[in-house]
Amino acid sequence: MVQAVLTATRAELARVGYRALRIEDVAALAKVHKTTIYRRWPEKQDLVRETMLSLFQENIAVPDTGSLRGDLLAVGYSMVRFATHPDGKSLVRMCATEGTEPELRAIVESLRSSKEAPPRRIVENAIARGEVAPDLDPELLVSVLAGAIHHRLFITQRAEEGLVERVVDLLLMGAKPR
Amino acid sequence: MVQAVLTATRAELARVGYRALRIEDVAALAKVHKTTIYRRWPEKQDLVRETMLSLFQENIAVPDTGSLRGDLLAVGYSMVRFATHPDGKSLVRMCATEGTEPELRAIVESLRSSKEAPPRRIVENAIARGEVAPDLDPELLVSVLAGAIHHRLFITQRAEEGLVERVVDLLLMGAKPR
Repeated sequence: MVQAVLTATRAELARVGYRALRIEDVAALAKVHKTTIYRRWPEKQDLVRETMLSLFQENIAVPDTGSLRGDLLAVGYSMVRFATHPDGKSLVRMCATEGTEPELRAIVESLRSSKEAPPRRIVENAIARGEVAPDLDPELLVSVLAGAIHHRLFITQRAEEGLVERVVDLLLMGAKPR
Repeated sequence: MVQAVLTATRAELARVGYRALRIEDVAALAKVHKTTIYRRWPEKQDLVRETMLSLFQENIAVPDTGSLRGDLLAVGYSMVRFATHPDGKSLVRMCATEGTEPELRAIVESLRSSKEAPPRRIVENAIARGEVAPDLDPELLVSVLAGAIHHRLFITQRAEEGLVERVVDLLLMGAKPR
């Protein structure tokens, strides 16, 4: 039941966005009774939050390749895959068009920590291996990687050959000569 | 006349987006004759292209502070200002909702080089001063900076204290210890 409702919510979010989403339509699409949905997700934002979380968890890799570079590349490739997939695209479109909607903003903000927990683990592993300084901010590194990739995809709608590698190497080595 | 038409086009783009933009409405708002517009901008995409270019030129700083760090900070601050300004916000919203429209994509692609010329000069200055390696890709550095800032603003709708500094220092020094 849960999976059917989450799948239906994805489809409805892609079709009508957040504001216009109606629990009745999700229920009809998932072939469950409305009250079944309300029992588990009392408010619309609970349902949308869990739907978005499941999307991230399915799509963003949590690699452990043994090196920070290998891990960041794997995360970067998964970000490109997700951002060019219809599910990822409709999520971006929804956030862009309805990003000032207070409920949706609250959901996105509250998802940030869950979304960034796996990448944080990658940086923690690198700190444990002595690859990077112990005071490196994991969230900064991952959010700059995500930002660079999404921004480029946003403009060109595709990642050019070698983009992920070039961004990862800039983030690891920096622009100043060593 | 040119300025009145560009201002009217900005307002119409913010109101109805690219696809629904009508030259008649721009002409009415700018209080000029439709044919006056067509003489200078034969196609809708010519008008929108010049409007977007003027927005970037007005809003993205071209600093020459004497150091790459100072210059990147100034560019970063101007990006935050623009992205949180109504003009910048409606541009982002339009690109997100209509980003698959082939004409709009062509405009955005064609603007990339003009938009990135001033930041490119910053990196060229830094190369001339010997601050960075001669083979550093100026476009990569600037697009990662822009991406990181826009991505963060997209999620939180505001730049937290010190964000620009933290991103610039990561890009200059890299995550690996020196």
